[in-house]
Amino acid sequence: MRQASTILSFETPGRGFVDITRAMAAWLGGSGIEEGLLTLLCRHTSASLLIQENAAREVRTDLAAWFDRLAPEGSHYAHDDEGPDDMPAHLRATLTGVNLQIPVMAGRMALGTWQGIYLAEHRRMPHRRQVAVHLIGQ
Amino acid sequence: MRQASTILSFETPGRGFVDITRAMAAWLGGSGIEEGLLTLLCRHTSASLLIQENAAREVRTDLAAWFDRLAPEGSHYAHDDEGPDDMPAHLRATLTGVNLQIPVMAGRMALGTWQGIYLAEHRRMPHRRQVAVHLIGQ
Amino acid sequence: MRQASTILSFETPGRGFVDITRAMAAWLGGSGIEEGLLTLLCRHTSASLLIQENAAREVRTDLAAWFDRLAPEGSHYAHDDEGPDDMPAHLRATLTGVNLQIPVMAGRMALGTWQGIYLAEHRRMPHRRQVAVHLIGQ
Repeated sequence: MRQASTILSFETPGRGFVDITRAMAAWLGGSGIEEGLLTLLCRHTSASLLIQENAAREVRTDLAAWFDRLAPEGSHYAHDDEGPDDMPAHLRATLTGVNLQIPVMAGRMALGTWQGIYLAEHRRMPHRRQVAVHLIGQ
Repeated sequence: MRQASTILSFETPGRGFVDITRAMAAWLGGSGIEEGLLTLLCRHTSASLLIQENAAREVRTDLAAWFDRLAPEGSHYAHDDEGPDDMPAHLRATLTGVNLQIPVMAGRMALGTWQGIYLAEHRRMPHRRQVAVHLIGQ
Repeated sequence: MRQASTILSFETPGRGFVDITRAMAAWLGGSGIEEGLLTLLCRHTSASLLIQENAAREVRTDLAAWFDRLAPEGSHYAHDDEGPDDMPAHLRATLTGVNLQIPVMAGRMALGTWQGIYLAEHRRMPHRRQVAVHLIGQ
């Protein structure tokens, strides 16, 4: 049994979803671990991680509209030092969470056919975001 | 230290909550691992996993009504190829997430007394759903 | 490779957020494990765990107001035996989830600079809450 870990960085183009599935598969492939557990932690409070539909692009359009509805921008927040998109970003990050865990079987992530791993950027501006990655197995 | 993993399948009767606590306890019992970490990943984007109250049935009634309120069916979604219950299902799966991790102590899941593990089906029709399960420990 | 686990108890002063980052760092420090994976499970259905902003206090004020808006108290719940704050507490616990996983690197949790670990109490009254903690690594 052994483990591997790293911090990966991803550039986001402002609000939206960055598919990091391939990047994770590539890192996993280089580890030599065939059976185990992969863990991701987004190291930010206004960006987050989720697993969602990887085919129909409209799902992400609707997801973004839903975030807007559940955690809208507005002047009603106490925390607004960093602009009107900051506090909604914290709320949206809370909604999806910053953690993912994926069993690894036969050298591959045990995702379903339609599942992709997304880094969700909730701020309007582009950011460089870090994801802490841990893998244990054999 | 060793690990075990599998893919378990569960039949859902359409929208609602399937208690999979006993199935997980049974699989854990068969593994021979007494101390460790159990991880579950629902391999779908319109079904999800959550830990909630296992006694009062009304909690799940209220939870279902809350899902209806936060992610209602309607004609306002861009993604509607698979019917009006599809996109709300993706949103509800995002709300609860598809991952769970449960420490294992003295051969049992370290759940609280009132906690059960539920597979939440968010589509109207019955489905067969897969859960990837990983266990590491000794 | 080895593992450690425990059940930690925290007193909550009623509804709000209890910062448990230091308590977790202290327990991790005592384990002697430098590289690994830390898992937390809140053993309750009306309290939960989240990682959020550790600096600006207003973020938690806005987060509390958002919980009130998304899962308000009211007389419309089927489950109300334990008072009007009980069912909203279950919903809020579902929103944030009861699980966290944090990679451990060089003896420290790989959290971002602005991330703190919070135990969210969703009931009005003070409670003693248990968190099951698991650590694996070397």
